[in-house]
Amino acid sequence: MQYQYSRSMLYEQLASEVGDAIRRGALRAGDRLPSVRRLADQRGVSVATVLSAYLELENAGLIEVRPKSGHYVRPRRGDELVAPRPARRMNAPARPSVSDGVARLISAMRDLSLVPLGSAYLGADDLPIAALNKLAAGISREMSTTGATYDPARGLTALRRQLARRSVAWGLSLHEDDFVTTIGATEALYLGLRAVARPGDAIAVESPTYFGVLQVIEALGMAAVEVPADPTTGLDLDALEDVLRGGRVRAVVAQTTATNPLGAVMPDDARRRLVRMLDRHDLPLIEDDVYGDLVFDGSRPRPARAYDTAGRVLLCGSVSKTLAPGYRVGWIAPGRYHEEVERLKFAHTLAGPTLTQTAVAEFLAGGGYDRHLRRLRRVLGARVEQVRDAIAAWFPTGCRVTSPLGGFVLWVELPPGVDALVLQQRAFDRGVAIAPGPIFSARRRFGNFVRLSCGAWSPRVEAGVQTVGEIACELSGRAPAAAPGGVA
Amino acid sequence: MQYQYSRSMLYEQLASEVGDAIRRGALRAGDRLPSVRRLADQRGVSVATVLSAYLELENAGLIEVRPKSGHYVRPRRGDELVAPRPARRMNAPARPSVSDGVARLISAMRDLSLVPLGSAYLGADDLPIAALNKLAAGISREMSTTGATYDPARGLTALRRQLARRSVAWGLSLHEDDFVTTIGATEALYLGLRAVARPGDAIAVESPTYFGVLQVIEALGMAAVEVPADPTTGLDLDALEDVLRGGRVRAVVAQTTATNPLGAVMPDDARRRLVRMLDRHDLPLIEDDVYGDLVFDGSRPRPARAYDTAGRVLLCGSVSKTLAPGYRVGWIAPGRYHEEVERLKFAHTLAGPTLTQTAVAEFLAGGGYDRHLRRLRRVLGARVEQVRDAIAAWFPTGCRVTSPLGGFVLWVELPPGVDALVLQQRAFDRGVAIAPGPIFSARRRFGNFVRLSCGAWSPRVEAGVQTVGEIACELSGRAPAAAPGGVA
Repeated sequence: MQYQYSRSMLYEQLASEVGDAIRRGALRAGDRLPSVRRLADQRGVSVATVLSAYLELENAGLIEVRPKSGHYVRPRRGDELVAPRPARRMNAPARPSVSDGVARLISAMRDLSLVPLGSAYLGADDLPIAALNKLAAGISREMSTTGATYDPARGLTALRRQLARRSVAWGLSLHEDDFVTTIGATEALYLGLRAVARPGDAIAVESPTYFGVLQVIEALGMAAVEVPADPTTGLDLDALEDVLRGGRVRAVVAQTTATNPLGAVMPDDARRRLVRMLDRHDLPLIEDDVYGDLVFDGSRPRPARAYDTAGRVLLCGSVSKTLAPGYRVGWIAPGRYHEEVERLKFAHTLAGPTLTQTAVAEFLAGGGYDRHLRRLRRVLGARVEQVRDAIAAWFPTGCRVTSPLGGFVLWVELPPGVDALVLQQRAFDRGVAIAPGPIFSARRRFGNFVRLSCGAWSPRVEAGVQTVGEIACELSGRAPAAAPGGVA
Repeated sequence: MQYQYSRSMLYEQLASEVGDAIRRGALRAGDRLPSVRRLADQRGVSVATVLSAYLELENAGLIEVRPKSGHYVRPRRGDELVAPRPARRMNAPARPSVSDGVARLISAMRDLSLVPLGSAYLGADDLPIAALNKLAAGISREMSTTGATYDPARGLTALRRQLARRSVAWGLSLHEDDFVTTIGATEALYLGLRAVARPGDAIAVESPTYFGVLQVIEALGMAAVEVPADPTTGLDLDALEDVLRGGRVRAVVAQTTATNPLGAVMPDDARRRLVRMLDRHDLPLIEDDVYGDLVFDGSRPRPARAYDTAGRVLLCGSVSKTLAPGYRVGWIAPGRYHEEVERLKFAHTLAGPTLTQTAVAEFLAGGGYDRHLRRLRRVLGARVEQVRDAIAAWFPTGCRVTSPLGGFVLWVELPPGVDALVLQQRAFDRGVAIAPGPIFSARRRFGNFVRLSCGAWSPRVEAGVQTVGEIACELSGRAPAAAPGGVA
């Protein structure tokens, strides 16, 4: 067993390294990879290990075998795509009103007959949900009084202990008492915002931003100020500085790692600069880190919280993107706002369920999480490329698409004049769910953008991308880029 | 098995009937009960059945055996107690600020070394928690992808179906789509209030009222107008009418059945009058029905919602008082505010956990719930009398105590000048948790009241009541009522 484990680790590591080299552009389309025997010699591993790694890369669509010649980096249609342009600045606060568009998205999520390119969640095949449920079954069976009392509002101690342990890997050293567990990151965002701001206050958010943030702001009667975000580096700090100097903003909400919908990762220097900026303006940051474990190159950037010495960063996370969305287990480390958040938590939901928190705590304690994450990052990195390829083939000429550094969504800029809401409706009518751009903006910008989730991949999903592309071609009057006469 | 079940039903029913006769005063202290043989003849049941019923009543402390004489209604010290006086009217709104007192209460709840007279939750022995956990174990094992997706914001369909089915027993006929499931009744109250009122609005509440309601009002930046409640009939509708005529109130929050802390049950006529009054003023009612299944005489009063034809009653409930507090399964039937509540639910917590909702749905579908409730009502009815007896024995002369019609809490008025917060602290120091009166009021009234939970009973709990009584005697300078020289 030990041998098997080690070997499997080796080939996975190898596949991951070569995959990264391809994604980073160190190996380019058409490049020949080292022969199997040669790479085995170079790395001091068995031929079988190299073969396994190459097979995995082939399955992921990153390389191809040319008979009697060797392994080559596969030409990718997606390489021809360029990134969308960042949004323009627009500093006046706006009351978000995205609930209707979101409601349609969510009801589509439950409709299993639809191709799931809409909501950002992974299929059961990608998640260790069976293992987690096995733990839950054991807990229910053996700890027969589980659920007989209310947990403390701050959450199950065993879970908070595991979070404290994991926080070391995040480059932090949080104590179990630094956490309050929540009903997913949604409640964490809600409690965090509620603790630091009041109805009527203006909140700075990324543009585009996760629509759930806008919904919380809407529900709390606050207003959003949209700050442009770059598809690679995230929040534009010059633009943020400009907004903060206006003096109307009461808090900032941002993702820093593998942002949704852009897939950006804020560089370490920028995280430091962001925290210093907030120090100067004496403002809190609600840092949404739900995708923090899903950077394709395997790095785990330190949250902005790591640069915070004043307790002004409220760090939010969950297991919804990596373990089980339906367990609704999230957390917040609210820094200096801890007491207020805990008080609000009691008034909101009193406490979280014991059973689901216990199962997640046991899973995190078991040590299989890191191994799962390594595999998941590789799978998602490859899958995002597959969807990009399909977009390059079927979407109209002139489309722009992000090249995310992590997570599992793509942000697509369609030709001007294509109405994303019309596209959503027509795609829905043809059995495909997508997320329209305007729900990612308090001002309903991004009218010609859509977000595609890469949470699943299959011939059916591929056909779904084709369907969306065909509709976009109809709406724009353009041919697909890959069609005869189409222009890349 | 069938025979055993029938017999057990019979003796339980018999015990329940006799117990009710005693509680209602049809049989009084010192009265002789019919002989075993005679009652068996009269009722057409076996002698063994009557013996089982009498044994249960004896164990519950309601009757006693006098050798060679028969069974007698036991004299109860608690019978000497009189009810507390209703609060005076005080119509100006006040911003609640009860969180600190509540936080102390809640942290005490988690301290297993304390005698649990503080928080209103039942011990694991009273709950079918093992059966519920067994269902959860089966679900986790057999439905291995449970939790792999987000449930719809309105909640698990299977659970909403069971709630619709049960609503028939409540005297309603709600459809599954009338419900939104929530994280306990706490989230139901929060969403309900948030849907019908805004920060700064005045909300009419009972006085005294469940502190959780005040916490939600506090968290939402609203104000509470306290309307006196009667220990038997609940909310004083004349006083409410007076308050509503003032025109400042935006919504009413009230319990109608087995209220906390009074144990009142609003008569049917009053429920009808309440809804008509709200119709006239065009105001919503958030009806908290968490104790609705726990009226000692086995009746299940129709919620005020049953008299509502305009969709203005938002009915809230949970399984926290009858099945499993730590499962955090609650619901709201928000009437005409449904759309808004569902939208807010999404922004608050997105959705509830799948596993816990599925387990509760299966439990409700299984049919054991009604049987459990029958037993629980009997147990709690008897236990409340036991705690009343202990109070009569050990608390200072001049105390007043409620005689609740349901639920499992007692509301105790101490002699003037006794500071309930000091009493709480001293009791805490001596290892006993209690709930101080001021947290049941936005104006921190009830300074000389405490609430005692009857969620558990044992020699240790009895000693805890004695301890609280002793401290109350010290603080008031009075002797216990049952002491030599004490006056009942």
